[in-house]
Amino acid sequence: MRVYLDNAATTPLLPEVLEAMLPYLKTHFGNPSAIHAHGRESRAAIEKARKTIAQCLNCLPGEIFFTSGGTEANNMALRCTVRSFNIRHLITTPIEHHCVQQTALELQQEGKIQVHLLAVDQYGRINLRQLEVLLQKLPAPVLVSVMHANNEIGTIADLQAIGELVFRYQGIFHSDSVQTVGHLPLDVRALPVHLLVGSAHKFHGPKGVGFIYVRNDIRISPLIVGGGQERNMRAGTENVAGIVGMAHALELCCSRMQEHMAYVSGLRQQLIRSLKADFTDVRINGDPENVLHTILNVSFPLNDQTAMLLFNLDLQGISASSGSACSSGAEKGSHVLEAIGGHEQRVAIRFSFSALNSFEEIDHVASTLRRLIPQPAAAQG
Amino acid sequence: MRVYLDNAATTPLLPEVLEAMLPYLKTHFGNPSAIHAHGRESRAAIEKARKTIAQCLNCLPGEIFFTSGGTEANNMALRCTVRSFNIRHLITTPIEHHCVQQTALELQQEGKIQVHLLAVDQYGRINLRQLEVLLQKLPAPVLVSVMHANNEIGTIADLQAIGELVFRYQGIFHSDSVQTVGHLPLDVRALPVHLLVGSAHKFHGPKGVGFIYVRNDIRISPLIVGGGQERNMRAGTENVAGIVGMAHALELCCSRMQEHMAYVSGLRQQLIRSLKADFTDVRINGDPENVLHTILNVSFPLNDQTAMLLFNLDLQGISASSGSACSSGAEKGSHVLEAIGGHEQRVAIRFSFSALNSFEEIDHVASTLRRLIPQPAAAQG
Repeated sequence: MRVYLDNAATTPLLPEVLEAMLPYLKTHFGNPSAIHAHGRESRAAIEKARKTIAQCLNCLPGEIFFTSGGTEANNMALRCTVRSFNIRHLITTPIEHHCVQQTALELQQEGKIQVHLLAVDQYGRINLRQLEVLLQKLPAPVLVSVMHANNEIGTIADLQAIGELVFRYQGIFHSDSVQTVGHLPLDVRALPVHLLVGSAHKFHGPKGVGFIYVRNDIRISPLIVGGGQERNMRAGTENVAGIVGMAHALELCCSRMQEHMAYVSGLRQQLIRSLKADFTDVRINGDPENVLHTILNVSFPLNDQTAMLLFNLDLQGISASSGSACSSGAEKGSHVLEAIGGHEQRVAIRFSFSALNSFEEIDHVASTLRRLIPQPAAAQG
Repeated sequence: MRVYLDNAATTPLLPEVLEAMLPYLKTHFGNPSAIHAHGRESRAAIEKARKTIAQCLNCLPGEIFFTSGGTEANNMALRCTVRSFNIRHLITTPIEHHCVQQTALELQQEGKIQVHLLAVDQYGRINLRQLEVLLQKLPAPVLVSVMHANNEIGTIADLQAIGELVFRYQGIFHSDSVQTVGHLPLDVRALPVHLLVGSAHKFHGPKGVGFIYVRNDIRISPLIVGGGQERNMRAGTENVAGIVGMAHALELCCSRMQEHMAYVSGLRQQLIRSLKADFTDVRINGDPENVLHTILNVSFPLNDQTAMLLFNLDLQGISASSGSACSSGAEKGSHVLEAIGGHEQRVAIRFSFSALNSFEEIDHVASTLRRLIPQPAAAQG
């Protein structure tokens, strides 16, 4: 039995999504910018996909722009907003994804902006009062970038409360919502947010495609230029099959969202119950009250049994993560765990779930952990 | 019969390429940055693809970086080279693809560089002497960007001669080779070039994936940041299936290149023969001596029959183009035809071929043109 519990890194493509993509990998191959029949067929598919995604998020089709993924979209959100609004100050958090952190750092190094980091508590929560003090102090417009759910520990930020503050002070609010699009209800018409980012492969769509939502009362310049595609907002021949797949995946995820949330929360709770029963010193990271149901970050004390835990889990057929997939190749500690503190001499593992996982798999993971990390007899049972 | 003669805009995915991609759209879905078995499987596929592409171009695998396509790669080539080498002067041509032109223009508007446009003659050829004079005059290092084959008229630039000049004056040479990768032999070890760009969907691979070749004696910074992917040269989860498909498509194209060149040249010659026999005033655009076999740009005098020619061809089931697909949505005249001159009061059509086209299709196009543009009796037969 091979068990995949790294769904925050990427999810399997749903067979129905592949089915929807196949015509665009076979007969419907035209360039959407071409005005002939082959081209119009592709153009129609893209615009239908845009409409589907807009319906899932409750926004206008014209507010959705396709990109090559979440990373490009987050780069674009920060870099192009700073340029278009002559932003001088960016407020963000120390637990953002590297693509937000690194873009912010580059913009600061280029002398364009000053970056202000909000403090986070032990659960990865920001302090709204600190945000308001900064917004009061700094000259408008300020760009605020806070991710919706943290990709390592799952803590969910209160976009409504943050956005209301940002809007009150005439700021621009960007949220990297890569972990939540398709997994949590998102009604952008109701939400005070200017820029949201999604990545297809995080919700059972294909890799290599994502989108940025840009609220229609702001206008930013493109990151990649030189073609009229996406109404001059993103040049380059569109990844038609990818876009079609993304829309279909999001539609499926949204139509089954309540059911999936309940089921996946159940998987997560089951693993938590087992871990608490089996281990004397296991910690659950992330906000206990407001955490994404797809992510469970736990830590054990560092010792001979846990030092190579991720490696040993892999040997036992279990795919999990030490945190963000994007930094797992690099042998660096997690910037998120460092920011929330208290993880010295501990080993953290991120299990991340999808509706394709089963309770049987969860039990298998729990029993494997019991074998890999033997406990004193008293703690067992 | 529907005939597709817009292969310079995009090509159909080969069925064998889709077959190669399918495992990565089904079971092999891991994130290549993940260190577990699911991830390693994807990582291995990407590195195999990199090796395949390197072999096709005769370069090192470490000189190939994957992008979301040719447009991103060309943006990166210009923008990141300017930044990394503190380039102040860019020499280019007035017939580059919009993604090169627009990036150059933006860099100039940002005050980073001055753009110097080489003159082109009636065939779209640059003057090497003018290039050398500029290289002598301008402070090194100068960035030179000249496309390999023009996407509208097919004129092939002499990369060897241009590159030798650029290297002699310690410049950096970039060539947008989107139209030639997979279609013309490219031996980058023998060629004096620093940066080359390819796009999968121009050689029967999937849309949404491309690459940039960066000669290993230069180093440029990334365009899209925030993840260790592509050895810190391009952040974002890799489009694994797309990369696998691109490599397979290029391998197929390179293995059949001589055969395809002969066959497609034959299609092109056949259409030229028909047009010359049938029409009193038809012009073939592009360099008669050095033109890409996949592209045939012709023009007719503007009159009632030709004004809507592209539209009428489409109605008759023939997909062709008025020029670059990327600008066909916009109702602007071709910047390429404007640069080579002499196209006032004429209607240009680009037919572009692939080895999937047949001689029967060419004959059908020729007879359709005869019907759509009636000629005086004397000119017929």
